[in-house]
Amino acid sequence: MTKPLVTALNLPQMDPLPPETQRYFDICVEKLGFVPNVLQSYAHNVDKLNAFTGMYNDLMLGNSGLSKLEREMIAVVVSSHNKCFYCLVSHGAAVRQLSGKPELGEALVMNYRVADLSARERAMLDFAVKMTEASAKIEEPDRQLLRDAGLSDADIWDVAAVAAFYNMSNRFSSAVAMEPNAEYHSAFR
Amino acid sequence: MTKPLVTALNLPQMDPLPPETQRYFDICVEKLGFVPNVLQSYAHNVDKLNAFTGMYNDLMLGNSGLSKLEREMIAVVVSSHNKCFYCLVSHGAAVRQLSGKPELGEALVMNYRVADLSARERAMLDFAVKMTEASAKIEEPDRQLLRDAGLSDADIWDVAAVAAFYNMSNRFSSAVAMEPNAEYHSAFR
Amino acid sequence: MTKPLVTALNLPQMDPLPPETQRYFDICVEKLGFVPNVLQSYAHNVDKLNAFTGMYNDLMLGNSGLSKLEREMIAVVVSSHNKCFYCLVSHGAAVRQLSGKPELGEALVMNYRVADLSARERAMLDFAVKMTEASAKIEEPDRQLLRDAGLSDADIWDVAAVAAFYNMSNRFSSAVAMEPNAEYHSAFR
Amino acid sequence: MTKPLVTALNLPQMDPLPPETQRYFDICVEKLGFVPNVLQSYAHNVDKLNAFTGMYNDLMLGNSGLSKLEREMIAVVVSSHNKCFYCLVSHGAAVRQLSGKPELGEALVMNYRVADLSARERAMLDFAVKMTEASAKIEEPDRQLLRDAGLSDADIWDVAAVAAFYNMSNRFSSAVAMEPNAEYHSAFR
Amino acid sequence: MTKPLVTALNLPQMDPLPPETQRYFDICVEKLGFVPNVLQSYAHNVDKLNAFTGMYNDLMLGNSGLSKLEREMIAVVVSSHNKCFYCLVSHGAAVRQLSGKPELGEALVMNYRVADLSARERAMLDFAVKMTEASAKIEEPDRQLLRDAGLSDADIWDVAAVAAFYNMSNRFSSAVAMEPNAEYHSAFR
Amino acid sequence: MTKPLVTALNLPQMDPLPPETQRYFDICVEKLGFVPNVLQSYAHNVDKLNAFTGMYNDLMLGNSGLSKLEREMIAVVVSSHNKCFYCLVSHGAAVRQLSGKPELGEALVMNYRVADLSARERAMLDFAVKMTEASAKIEEPDRQLLRDAGLSDADIWDVAAVAAFYNMSNRFSSAVAMEPNAEYHSAFR
Repeated sequence: MTKPLVTALNLPQMDPLPPETQRYFDICVEKLGFVPNVLQSYAHNVDKLNAFTGMYNDLMLGNSGLSKLEREMIAVVVSSHNKCFYCLVSHGAAVRQLSGKPELGEALVMNYRVADLSARERAMLDFAVKMTEASAKIEEPDRQLLRDAGLSDADIWDVAAVAAFYNMSNRFSSAVAMEPNAEYHSAFR
Repeated sequence: MTKPLVTALNLPQMDPLPPETQRYFDICVEKLGFVPNVLQSYAHNVDKLNAFTGMYNDLMLGNSGLSKLEREMIAVVVSSHNKCFYCLVSHGAAVRQLSGKPELGEALVMNYRVADLSARERAMLDFAVKMTEASAKIEEPDRQLLRDAGLSDADIWDVAAVAAFYNMSNRFSSAVAMEPNAEYHSAFR
Repeated sequence: MTKPLVTALNLPQMDPLPPETQRYFDICVEKLGFVPNVLQSYAHNVDKLNAFTGMYNDLMLGNSGLSKLEREMIAVVVSSHNKCFYCLVSHGAAVRQLSGKPELGEALVMNYRVADLSARERAMLDFAVKMTEASAKIEEPDRQLLRDAGLSDADIWDVAAVAAFYNMSNRFSSAVAMEPNAEYHSAFR
Repeated sequence: MTKPLVTALNLPQMDPLPPETQRYFDICVEKLGFVPNVLQSYAHNVDKLNAFTGMYNDLMLGNSGLSKLEREMIAVVVSSHNKCFYCLVSHGAAVRQLSGKPELGEALVMNYRVADLSARERAMLDFAVKMTEASAKIEEPDRQLLRDAGLSDADIWDVAAVAAFYNMSNRFSSAVAMEPNAEYHSAFR
Repeated sequence: MTKPLVTALNLPQMDPLPPETQRYFDICVEKLGFVPNVLQSYAHNVDKLNAFTGMYNDLMLGNSGLSKLEREMIAVVVSSHNKCFYCLVSHGAAVRQLSGKPELGEALVMNYRVADLSARERAMLDFAVKMTEASAKIEEPDRQLLRDAGLSDADIWDVAAVAAFYNMSNRFSSAVAMEPNAEYHSAFR
Repeated sequence: MTKPLVTALNLPQMDPLPPETQRYFDICVEKLGFVPNVLQSYAHNVDKLNAFTGMYNDLMLGNSGLSKLEREMIAVVVSSHNKCFYCLVSHGAAVRQLSGKPELGEALVMNYRVADLSARERAMLDFAVKMTEASAKIEEPDRQLLRDAGLSDADIWDVAAVAAFYNMSNRFSSAVAMEPNAEYHSAFR
């Protein structure tokens, strides 16, 4: 049975999925209860799916001086600037889950400046927002603010990489009208 | 001998490079005469380098209904909007090379609206620019304009993916102050 | 006992409250379970409180060709444009409650263009957004779009009045850092 | 005889006006020589008229640590940002009248940064403009600048309330194409 | 006796003025009652003064398919977009004088979209505004709108030249803080 | 033989050219190898041509505390902000020529913030950009930054005059679709 489309493009999933992909999707169902639509949308082409998951998994789940929550916070704040429905719904849920603070997820979706943040968090989010709205104006003093907040150069690389990634992902999701899984809305409230 | 840094971050290349990376870089030197600085900048971490090249190679060199020149044209126009020095220098050279028209590379760097473009090219570049400046405002009529210009849904995926990728890459390059290789400036003029 | 402040300004509530105000607040507690912080913030001055509630109650609860849900939808979309935390939290909850569709509340907070809207709703929200971001560019054709969607001139007055009111309320709430009641976050999910 | 419409909406004045409204309008004629069109426009509905005048009279004529001229200066500067013809004409005249300086009214209409202002006035107007163009970015240091200029927290409430009110009023006037009374143009020049 | 400075720069007028300049200034006094401060500001250097007046006189007073009023209307609308105090004060007075309609001068200063304009005037002003805010987006359809409104290619040259000139003049006046002559404020009201 | 048009307007060159104009154009050919298209475009009207060259020659070639390279750098940076193809091509070539640094010309076209600039150059270019994007916000502290960088008030006049001139010239060139001479593209690479 054909899976329903999760974007506005008529690009159905491979059927059957390659065994490695099927295993990956089975793990998603086991852990999350569903396969995130972003993965389903890429599943029309195994090379594109693997390239996307390769970068995503390194950035968001790999070793880093940034906690997973910090990376999700960056994802939400960038997505808020870009008004990406898919990413706000899915990563907003992740912030609520990882922080245990539903109101933090809400504040980052709506206006991160009102959230109760540490100086380190605020510095990371300000940098991510400047990258989002005016990357050509970033200069050495902007990076120095991150160092002053305790970040190493490897940490700055990771802040920049995560913020940049969601500037890609937000625009791609909006361009193809990716629909978020309904399960996110009520999760971790 | 340590390689000079090509960004503002103190993240030296692995030394020695893993054999597979070394082979990749050797091929770059053979084909281009140098290793693009973007690859050198990622070479502090083999996982990040492989994730980046995996996505880059699929997008820019893999099979697609878009020609390599069309993909490079999207790269330049997005980079012009974002004023990314690294990407304008390197992908501007690629447009000059692939098109054989130096003035086309210049026009796309400066203001793509004055370039002599086919209706298909203009439609792709307009979509890429709207994704760059106002992705949240993309709706079905925007995608329909691409279909009207003869693009398939798989082609639209690729336009969106390339435009999104350079919105990532531009922001990352600016955030870390990536320097372009000097060789690009005079190439294909 | 002094009530805690709900804005960044040191303007405590009248103590005791005037009897009519106390009755109004008692009704809030009975119906909602709490007194909305916006009312508490105005309660330092009975004239200002009465002027605000006079306008609010006429606009949002009075007779109108717009349903209460439609008025709340306008409130949320204007507040999303202005990134007002207080109004997004409180009126987002109202949209979830009145519509019975949590995902509609989320979509209007995040990017109303992706929501599943009737033509009438979309026309009202587009007009409200244009009023918010470029009111000086509104001309007769903008009003005609509302008439074409079935709105009477009295309805257009109400769309304009609600959209204008939240452009006031959003800015005021942000200017004084008004905190939303915690109860809203988990309501009607 | 029906009064001519003063907006683009076909919402005639109540005829006859309720006695209290007629008395209010008679006082306007006595004091100003005419009934301001904003009042005439609201006179299709006595509840809406009373809600508007209730808030207006409290804000602009009630007790405040801000002088009436200061409140009118805020009105003009906010209206200049929003390019509201009705409010610039009517409140520009008020600044000319209250200040006795026609050139001050002109400067606030055109570009308040060139006007000859006290530090207190400049601080209030800068805050009002930030509320107008980027209210979501207002944080504690913005309020502190007002305190440093000598304003109490009650004064800050009033600056915020007046600036917010004209962000409503400007948008509403533009949305319904409210025409200013001709008498304002030549007054107090 | 040294003339007072009319900008923020300490660049006094030549003393004595060259005879031709003195004659020019005498004619100004005879015709206008004063020497416009823009001329006084340039009078520190005869070459710069002559270059400026050469271009100004050709554009604003020379033969053209545009009437002098139309040229002044463009000047005011461009200056309104750029919020140039000097040019709004001086050219606003010129529109009041040449049109005999004080309210037209006011409307063009405040928001030209509300003014009562002919289709030809509106087309010219829309083109001038697009040149001011987004000149890089002007393409053939924009010029065609002017032709459709009855303008010849020579007329389009003149619209473009006048709109461009005030984009220069506005920025220069603001950059040096040029003060308008006080006489303009009450003239032609 | 009629010269080909170099803009989108059908305004042919005078034929024959007035002798003085012919001599000027002959000098251009001798020195540059061609007549810049901007001069050809103005050659439909000798008064307009002379007014333009009068101002251009004074600004860009006359005596000044700014070097010719500095003036060309301002021209390119302003033109980059305004995305003017004609001016970026022609003045980009001038920066490459006068500086002997092709990469400097490229950086100023693409994003001057990444260029290797002296403090004096950076201050001048920052002022020119602020004039371009927000001239109404220039105040005394902006001028003081130039004085702090060693500029006299006469130098500030010249920075302002050159930056203003290209805000005119960029907009005019874009409005009439002026085509740059092909010779510039490969020059001084």
